[in-house]
Amino acid sequence: MRNLLVTIRYRGTNYHGFQVQKNAVSVCQVFQDAQEKVFGGRLDIKGCSRTDAGVHANEFCLNFWTDRAIPCHKVPLALNAHLPEDVAVTACREVPLDFHARYDCCGKEYCYLVHNSPVRDPFLEGLAWRYPRRLDDQALDHGAKAFLGTHDFSAFCSTGSTVEDPVRTLYSFQVRRQGDLVRFVVRGDGFLYNMVRILVGTLVQASEKGYTPEMLEEILSSKERSRAGRTAPPWGLYLNRVFYSQQELLDVQP
Amino acid sequence: MRNLLVTIRYRGTNYHGFQVQKNAVSVCQVFQDAQEKVFGGRLDIKGCSRTDAGVHANEFCLNFWTDRAIPCHKVPLALNAHLPEDVAVTACREVPLDFHARYDCCGKEYCYLVHNSPVRDPFLEGLAWRYPRRLDDQALDHGAKAFLGTHDFSAFCSTGSTVEDPVRTLYSFQVRRQGDLVRFVVRGDGFLYNMVRILVGTLVQASEKGYTPEMLEEILSSKERSRAGRTAPPWGLYLNRVFYSQQELLDVQP
Repeated sequence: MRNLLVTIRYRGTNYHGFQVQKNAVSVCQVFQDAQEKVFGGRLDIKGCSRTDAGVHANEFCLNFWTDRAIPCHKVPLALNAHLPEDVAVTACREVPLDFHARYDCCGKEYCYLVHNSPVRDPFLEGLAWRYPRRLDDQALDHGAKAFLGTHDFSAFCSTGSTVEDPVRTLYSFQVRRQGDLVRFVVRGDGFLYNMVRILVGTLVQASEKGYTPEMLEEILSSKERSRAGRTAPPWGLYLNRVFYSQQELLDVQP
Repeated sequence: MRNLLVTIRYRGTNYHGFQVQKNAVSVCQVFQDAQEKVFGGRLDIKGCSRTDAGVHANEFCLNFWTDRAIPCHKVPLALNAHLPEDVAVTACREVPLDFHARYDCCGKEYCYLVHNSPVRDPFLEGLAWRYPRRLDDQALDHGAKAFLGTHDFSAFCSTGSTVEDPVRTLYSFQVRRQGDLVRFVVRGDGFLYNMVRILVGTLVQASEKGYTPEMLEEILSSKERSRAGRTAPPWGLYLNRVFYSQQELLDVQP
């Protein structure tokens, strides 16, 4: 028996997230269809995370166990031959038998893309949140630092979700502008339901209304969802990196 | 009567080029549908160029004459409200009554994108030509210089096209790598049918087979299409800029 860790990349537009759902196409489902053809059977898949409908992944990890002896370097091409154009396997490696893509994950990095322009861009449709009024990226970056460290992030969790422990640690949170694109990159040990999208929505609203970092800290410590801003739309969100090594997770780019 | 010069941007995947065609959807057709709603009538449109099916445009220019007094700065939003997601108006300005988007064009710049990777990228599907074997971008850039200047480009024109004069002038032709993306940018006073795609196909083939720049010059002077390489696929090609000023055309970035 072998345990394979597979990295995939997908454009989430046409999917209802990663997790298999009734009456909706998921990334996991199209992956399983390909896997069945290559590995000769429907295998149990462990994904690193659920992602919401429309959310993208530059890097998403999953693992499964198989008896087949297909060499790891041949797995991407073999699976890609059976996957649709918007999903691709980028890597495969063998891991210890007790490895689990979700339980062994020690952190994740998300990217959120805002297209800050009054004019639509046909090449960014479904790939970025278009925001017409000019955003102050330096103020956004400054505000983002208010969320660094270990906090109860209840104010940034969609209501209705049941999480036992709402405490998470953010290691880095940067906002950078490249032309019309404003890129939010946040790295942490874990994220509550919709947390990144609510953080981005709140920062954008704070930048518009001239909130100080102190006001953001107040929202955080209130633990009340109603105090935070709107949930930014899913199509700007990308799961960027998945960490299985604490050392890599803490090796934050300046 | 006013003459309006409108700049659009489009993802060409779902279109059979710009020009109106029977039994196929063209960019011009969806533009005319939007224009009819905003300007209250079907107006004659002059496009700067035909583009092939699947080819994209970062900048495409067209003009039309109208009696309507809609201010130029309101035209993009008004038209965009009626255009599909993959076509967007980015600018509009008034030009002299005798201006013609095609006849007054003194040059164009095209970009051709190669995704140089053995692995598919879901975010580049339909937006770049994927070429699996490693390309030598410095050799490609060196080879591209063989085509600079004024030449008879018959060897780089698809057979069957009837052009009176196959002489064109290329002002710049650069090849640069950014990670897995190899970007060809070529600027000239005009281009024959499929010329950019045959130039790119020939350079890639030359780089694979180790042709010298002298061999490329020989292909050029042979004027025989059969000596040049394959036509690179349409989905890597972007009309990048359209020039109406000789000064801007010759202001080549180093």
